[in-house]
Amino acid sequence: MTALSTPVRPSGVVTLLSDFGQQDTYVGVMKGVLLARACALRSIVDLTHAIPPQDVRAAAFHLAHSWRWFERGTVHVAVVDPGVGSARRGLAASAHGHWFLAPDNGLLGPVLAADPAARVHAIDAARHGFAQRSRTFHGRDVFAPVAAALADGLALEETGPRVDDWQALSFPAPEVAAARIEAEILLADRFGNLITNADGALLGARPEAWSVEHGGLMIPVLGTYADAQGGALLCLVNSYGLVEIARRDGSAAAQLGLVPGDRIALSRASKGPR
Amino acid sequence: MTALSTPVRPSGVVTLLSDFGQQDTYVGVMKGVLLARACALRSIVDLTHAIPPQDVRAAAFHLAHSWRWFERGTVHVAVVDPGVGSARRGLAASAHGHWFLAPDNGLLGPVLAADPAARVHAIDAARHGFAQRSRTFHGRDVFAPVAAALADGLALEETGPRVDDWQALSFPAPEVAAARIEAEILLADRFGNLITNADGALLGARPEAWSVEHGGLMIPVLGTYADAQGGALLCLVNSYGLVEIARRDGSAAAQLGLVPGDRIALSRASKGPR
Amino acid sequence: MTALSTPVRPSGVVTLLSDFGQQDTYVGVMKGVLLARACALRSIVDLTHAIPPQDVRAAAFHLAHSWRWFERGTVHVAVVDPGVGSARRGLAASAHGHWFLAPDNGLLGPVLAADPAARVHAIDAARHGFAQRSRTFHGRDVFAPVAAALADGLALEETGPRVDDWQALSFPAPEVAAARIEAEILLADRFGNLITNADGALLGARPEAWSVEHGGLMIPVLGTYADAQGGALLCLVNSYGLVEIARRDGSAAAQLGLVPGDRIALSRASKGPR
Repeated sequence: MTALSTPVRPSGVVTLLSDFGQQDTYVGVMKGVLLARACALRSIVDLTHAIPPQDVRAAAFHLAHSWRWFERGTVHVAVVDPGVGSARRGLAASAHGHWFLAPDNGLLGPVLAADPAARVHAIDAARHGFAQRSRTFHGRDVFAPVAAALADGLALEETGPRVDDWQALSFPAPEVAAARIEAEILLADRFGNLITNADGALLGARPEAWSVEHGGLMIPVLGTYADAQGGALLCLVNSYGLVEIARRDGSAAAQLGLVPGDRIALSRASKGPR
Repeated sequence: MTALSTPVRPSGVVTLLSDFGQQDTYVGVMKGVLLARACALRSIVDLTHAIPPQDVRAAAFHLAHSWRWFERGTVHVAVVDPGVGSARRGLAASAHGHWFLAPDNGLLGPVLAADPAARVHAIDAARHGFAQRSRTFHGRDVFAPVAAALADGLALEETGPRVDDWQALSFPAPEVAAARIEAEILLADRFGNLITNADGALLGARPEAWSVEHGGLMIPVLGTYADAQGGALLCLVNSYGLVEIARRDGSAAAQLGLVPGDRIALSRASKGPR
Repeated sequence: MTALSTPVRPSGVVTLLSDFGQQDTYVGVMKGVLLARACALRSIVDLTHAIPPQDVRAAAFHLAHSWRWFERGTVHVAVVDPGVGSARRGLAASAHGHWFLAPDNGLLGPVLAADPAARVHAIDAARHGFAQRSRTFHGRDVFAPVAAALADGLALEETGPRVDDWQALSFPAPEVAAARIEAEILLADRFGNLITNADGALLGARPEAWSVEHGGLMIPVLGTYADAQGGALLCLVNSYGLVEIARRDGSAAAQLGLVPGDRIALSRASKGPR
């Protein structure tokens, strides 16, 4: 609700998230445009550019779990944009006291759904983008110029007409019963940690009463990686606040052969503390 | 011609391009030197460090297509330098209202050839580089100190003696006939898009009259990726302004097995609009 | 000794080194925390985030060879932290006129051992970290907040109690005889250059009198890569000041099949100059 009660001042920070990778100069060129057009830019931060090509869902996950660590008034630009140059709209939104720019393909869905006071506008590219716009790189030709303008104090209302029919996107919810949670793996991170859709709060006050059974293995819920023996599997509530399957000093993804979309089950022991 | 008519003021932005990769600290250390020596530094931007080792041609392509998106007065440092520590010179140049630093191995060739008013100097490393210079890392020991000095206002003439015999490098030109263009693939990008040497302007006012025939496939020229069906091949004029072969939501490079150096042919339909 | 004689002022530069990779947003989120909490931040520099997971030794090598290229008063944050959330301490140290933050697992060992005036404190996470700290991501929840505070002028003594029993880590020393040096490969870099633990100074005033014999090949010590023929192996004193085996325009690691931990022998010719 903060977005309505207190006017937000730009922090001078712009974050970038994309599926552009680092092998080309697409990201560098976007930064060139930002620096050339924004006077009040303090820092440009790469969230990640390693989103798998066209994977809007992975981008939505990462954006939804990252923005809160930045200061109020930050502009977050997220470009995973298989529909670039088509009729799909570009969005400029205010939510949680931050600004968000992305194509209208669900990428902003989780962020916007979490703030009832979110305001969303459809970017008027002809007014705010480059006069000579490509039809294949709106990160450079539309989103970067608008991000620069917002960082310099442009009012959100000036970016284009307000819209309410932006595309939603939600992550599958875990199936929760009294002593059993069926969760889905959303992501394997760099370490091979398997991050699920189960909120750690579902494990209650005594998470260690739960365990995962998978392929004949019983994987205990522990407090942190170092609570497991070297090479052993464990389950924990990770720094996203989500249930994760990990392997001490190794890759759970490689050992278990699990990938995003696979399901795992958590069970709570019926008897007292182990 | 701007470089002669109006004095260029440093923008405080320095870009870096190299084949150093990101696994070592070579790039980070160059930034340390820049930050330690430049007072007026506003931002350091990575263009890319994933140039294939020693691939001067790929570096020249990326630099030539990136610098224009930065503001006037930016210093671009490009280090792909198989001849480091030999008699090869280091160059400091002014062109298009920007500054460029690179070894004299062709890396700056396309940028310099495109500005008749370009001025090129051979860096006096003994004067501007570190007193204790390695023979294997002039990015750190010579180019970074000179970039810092230029960003702080050093006159180009002070970097060393003027030279006119810098090494040229040009990309192969497409072979153009009335209804046929033979182009060469210069680059496959992160998405597997195949970027050719054919300027989009060669397709004239009605690009969609052209198509590529390859291995029995007819690949149409369309406006953007989303104009093709999912998984279909298409051809378009990309954000570099070059003709590109792409695959909607997929990799044209993987599907077609084409690599840089391979040739493709564009043909124009002889009859009216399809 | 400088750390004692002259008070160090923060440079406003913070460097980051980790095994977090670039595919997730862990690094970006740390930068968000730094930017949100530090007022006097000038620049955040990535040293590398491609340290192999949990490889404290590789991290220690890279940190020890990188910090000196930054200006005095820089804060270096290094997080390779398999023991995160356990009883292992977090360290905040002053050495060489720089500040260093890392888990107490040997990562800072070489840096601290090289400065007899180093001062080391155990971070009081409850006081300086987030109130709601995860047990799995102290880069975000403890080290970033402390780095921001140091960059803003917090006195090192305020970070927590002084300790002297920090964990040491040293690299294996080469075995040196009059005309023979047995060295160990510490690292293969992006180019496939094999970096050893032998200091270049061991080769004396005439390095080219030495050579490496390996698998029937005689590899000469030369001045720089370009002194070798294309595709030929060579040995040189690299920009770290260490003996390195390289291949002109190619990968010595790939050709020789050597990996970190393998040993090579340098011999000095007994007769006059070749």
